Amino acid sequence: MPRVAFLGLGAIGTPMAKHLARPAFDLAVWNRTPSKAEAFAAATGARQAATPAEAARDRDVVVTCLPVSRDVEALLDGPDGLLATMPAGSVLVDCTSGDAATSRRMAARLAERGIGFLDAPVSGGVVGAEQGALTVMIGGDEATLERVRPVLESFGKKIVHCGGVGAGDALKAVNNALLAMHIWGTAEGLVALEKAGVKAEVALDVINTSSGRSNASMNLFPDRVVTRAFPRTFRLALLDKDVGIAAELAREQKIVAPLLQLTSELFRLAHSELGEEADHVEAVQVVERLGGAMVGGRPTEG
Amino acid sequence: MPRVAFLGLGAIGTPMAKHLARPAFDLAVWNRTPSKAEAFAAATGARQAATPAEAARDRDVVVTCLPVSRDVEALLDGPDGLLATMPAGSVLVDCTSGDAATSRRMAARLAERGIGFLDAPVSGGVVGAEQGALTVMIGGDEATLERVRPVLESFGKKIVHCGGVGAGDALKAVNNALLAMHIWGTAEGLVALEKAGVKAEVALDVINTSSGRSNASMNLFPDRVVTRAFPRTFRLALLDKDVGIAAELAREQKIVAPLLQLTSELFRLAHSELGEEADHVEAVQVVERLGGAMVGGRPTEG
Amino acid sequence: MPRVAFLGLGAIGTPMAKHLARPAFDLAVWNRTPSKAEAFAAATGARQAATPAEAARDRDVVVTCLPVSRDVEALLDGPDGLLATMPAGSVLVDCTSGDAATSRRMAARLAERGIGFLDAPVSGGVVGAEQGALTVMIGGDEATLERVRPVLESFGKKIVHCGGVGAGDALKAVNNALLAMHIWGTAEGLVALEKAGVKAEVALDVINTSSGRSNASMNLFPDRVVTRAFPRTFRLALLDKDVGIAAELAREQKIVAPLLQLTSELFRLAHSELGEEADHVEAVQVVERLGGAMVGGRPTEG
Amino acid sequence: MPRVAFLGLGAIGTPMAKHLARPAFDLAVWNRTPSKAEAFAAATGARQAATPAEAARDRDVVVTCLPVSRDVEALLDGPDGLLATMPAGSVLVDCTSGDAATSRRMAARLAERGIGFLDAPVSGGVVGAEQGALTVMIGGDEATLERVRPVLESFGKKIVHCGGVGAGDALKAVNNALLAMHIWGTAEGLVALEKAGVKAEVALDVINTSSGRSNASMNLFPDRVVTRAFPRTFRLALLDKDVGIAAELAREQKIVAPLLQLTSELFRLAHSELGEEADHVEAVQVVERLGGAMVGGRPTEG
Repeated sequence: MPRVAFLGLGAIGTPMAKHLARPAFDLAVWNRTPSKAEAFAAATGARQAATPAEAARDRDVVVTCLPVSRDVEALLDGPDGLLATMPAGSVLVDCTSGDAATSRRMAARLAERGIGFLDAPVSGGVVGAEQGALTVMIGGDEATLERVRPVLESFGKKIVHCGGVGAGDALKAVNNALLAMHIWGTAEGLVALEKAGVKAEVALDVINTSSGRSNASMNLFPDRVVTRAFPRTFRLALLDKDVGIAAELAREQKIVAPLLQLTSELFRLAHSELGEEADHVEAVQVVERLGGAMVGGRPTEG
Repeated sequence: MPRVAFLGLGAIGTPMAKHLARPAFDLAVWNRTPSKAEAFAAATGARQAATPAEAARDRDVVVTCLPVSRDVEALLDGPDGLLATMPAGSVLVDCTSGDAATSRRMAARLAERGIGFLDAPVSGGVVGAEQGALTVMIGGDEATLERVRPVLESFGKKIVHCGGVGAGDALKAVNNALLAMHIWGTAEGLVALEKAGVKAEVALDVINTSSGRSNASMNLFPDRVVTRAFPRTFRLALLDKDVGIAAELAREQKIVAPLLQLTSELFRLAHSELGEEADHVEAVQVVERLGGAMVGGRPTEG
Repeated sequence: MPRVAFLGLGAIGTPMAKHLARPAFDLAVWNRTPSKAEAFAAATGARQAATPAEAARDRDVVVTCLPVSRDVEALLDGPDGLLATMPAGSVLVDCTSGDAATSRRMAARLAERGIGFLDAPVSGGVVGAEQGALTVMIGGDEATLERVRPVLESFGKKIVHCGGVGAGDALKAVNNALLAMHIWGTAEGLVALEKAGVKAEVALDVINTSSGRSNASMNLFPDRVVTRAFPRTFRLALLDKDVGIAAELAREQKIVAPLLQLTSELFRLAHSELGEEADHVEAVQVVERLGGAMVGGRPTEG
Repeated sequence: MPRVAFLGLGAIGTPMAKHLARPAFDLAVWNRTPSKAEAFAAATGARQAATPAEAARDRDVVVTCLPVSRDVEALLDGPDGLLATMPAGSVLVDCTSGDAATSRRMAARLAERGIGFLDAPVSGGVVGAEQGALTVMIGGDEATLERVRPVLESFGKKIVHCGGVGAGDALKAVNNALLAMHIWGTAEGLVALEKAGVKAEVALDVINTSSGRSNASMNLFPDRVVTRAFPRTFRLALLDKDVGIAAELAREQKIVAPLLQLTSELFRLAHSELGEEADHVEAVQVVERLGGAMVGGRPTEG
């Protein structure tokens, strides 16, 4: 029975951790805001730890799921930090949508103590996490992956080994950058069409059976934009961060990537305009406002 | 039995016209290069006309399918032109992926003679044309559309009324601009990933079950890029033209549309680099060359 | 003594027209808002005309200076229009910062009646206009230019024949697009430096003796931005229009011009954000707001 | 008499070092390729050192001038490195056009040993270096600057304290990014104008008395582009690096800076196309080739 710690009970982390709070695992949890961990422990029987160090003590696997890589790195040091207690032979599985540079730095420090590291960002959203149906993108060595596979399979349906440390981060960032580009680009096109007299509902009906379709046009625009629902499921601030990581990857690799770089600027602009709490799809509203037409609704009053 | 003329027996036009060469229609065809029309007539029993004027004489509907709107406009005038013979009450259905400004100009001239006009660009490619399963995007008035619907339904499965004259052109251009953006953006991401050690096959496997997926990532990259097949099915020069039309639409409508505009620049660049005969997906090779890595293959020698 | 009409007594037009209100010329003026023309006539002794047609009657040269080409085109027709009275052999000199396509269309219509046309946009601003020291960029044939040279020299110090009709428009638009690019690009750099702790005054002191200097960095930033003066001398809306003309020129000529196209998007954004009355240099405030730092001042409260 | 070491006898470093090879200074020099240092020593009487450590022994000031910051960082360590011999109380003045992050890292390491650090990139080119008329942009504390001022004044006419460590790097990078933007943007405009029939000589004559002028349009285009001279004075590869540093600065500071980012992509593209030896102004040739027209010359054959 693997002993597991889970750190970071956010929107995705909480349903992921629930799959580990079963008899098959011995689970300890920690969260920066203790009340969440307390509620989780009460509901699931997992043990609440007061500090990262306490959570990680005697664990085979420590899973982290935080907003950015530096949040994880900040948990390593000090008397309450992970390095104070993680035993040699254990593995840190970081499910944060992180950046490869920080992942490599963490992996190097852990390796000095005989601790393994995998970057393991996930896709599939809250629903995928609840259903244990996430895609998990692994960066790190295969032997380490095999040791923690049962843990990963508790919440992931598709476990993909992408390459060395940082490869999972890189792939997650590129996927999300494409999502961002498709949201913004589709918004540009639909706002132009609306203003030219072609309704978004008609345009999406055609695009979604044609060559310009994407996950954004097939799912996000019909469900969230045309309906003006804009549920808050994934923060724009985090997507901005992810596009920035992908853009940085392209620069490090000396790729001429003007669309990725411009997408990064546009999401920084949207983030600056809409603040920390906005959902990623609300970026469409920036395109609408600047263009002076609404996608699939009547123009806003005032 | 509607009397129909079809002008423009290219890659898409030929299979479209075949659906009109059935007992239900009386079909005349014309093509700039007469040998194609001759072969078509021989194979189908359609009548070959020597000039646009001859093809259009006594027709209820004239269908055109040419590279650009100006090619159609150039067929209107002169003793051999369409205006010399098209009767009042007939309709010109232009299936060219055209531009709205030229369509409106043609519609106005035809209206002076009591002739109807629809812009009616299609999507679905050669396969869709062969199967009579195209999507047809209609700009023009609904009454005119109803008069020619049987003709459109011979080759189209989904006939969508988009708005007034030019609305079909606008929607087709935006769809194709999104296609172009997705091809180029996905190429940027995959080239960066390849250089960072993540194979395109692995990346596409993940992206295509994640939020960054598009028609480009799900179909074009697996079938044409990773395989290095790059079949020539749709010319880059024509996609460049379409992206330009979409970018122009956005500018006319005063939309802030930096991604559309940049995509237009990048396809002009690719067109300039690769010439008139390249397929649209070959644009990926420009990203590969500039970035110094190949998507899903080994680097080219030399 | 050339008989001259001047239409369009705006910020630049008024001081230009003053140079023509001298004994050497017989001047008639017209303005859409009659009170301006009335005041001008009262101050200078020029004759006020009630309509464009009246202004142009018996004139050798008609000079127009309006916001956009279409404003000029709209003055041609109808019983009060220029075509109703301009005599064969006269010349229309359009000092509007116009677009080549409209200029060519006007030139063609005027040529049918034996009337010459020159596009003749000016640079030098209000001060240059007052001093009769403008640069005048001429598009049209040289013989026509020679016929009106005395009129041009009344307000212009540097008369440059640029090419055929539209060449003056094209050059003016490109000059202004470079101005716009330099304003925005310098703002990006200075905002980044301010945030990194390098004061704009220090940065400009260095840049203006180094290779990155431009008219924007040498004049506009020290005089208008660092001082927070932002006088309203040239409307952002008009610069947006000019950049759009330059971007359109590049597209028509099939130039790969991503910086021009992006500059066009950014000024459309600024125009959308700041409205019709903002000065062109206020675009800097959009960069400041989005970046979260001020160039050469303390951050705005609230 | 300050004892000085100069490391890096490149195109700019050599004329800078000459000003230190005077009786007022005791100069030791080192260069990676020893023959250059040997020739320099023979010509000037400076002492040639076999290693950085030997050059730095007993020096008050060590000046470095290398292609990139990491080249300087690589000289610090090992038995032959600067840290092996630089005495406490000495100062490392790095005239490399460097990046702030590396400068800060070096400053921190040197501070541990009581050694001062200034980033001190220069502008003014080879001619400025020969005349001792460079502008020197200083990042670091003022007391350190005062201690080395006589050394800086030997080659610099304008010594500007920009801020803390890295501020000089930041300002130099932004200046060069503006240079790059102005070169590319002016090229786009002039290529479009040439294709539209306006000769570059005429266009530059107007622009250079108008608001769109810049150092690029006033000096580089007339002297190097229109003449087709393209002398190799400053490598495109280095300008690409500088634009990248400025773009990185903007991202670190969370500035929305699309023009800087796009300029960075375009110079990466040009660098990829033209290779390591091309001059920075040759970037114009990429714009020309993609646009299909030459600035100020006849189209190339073939």
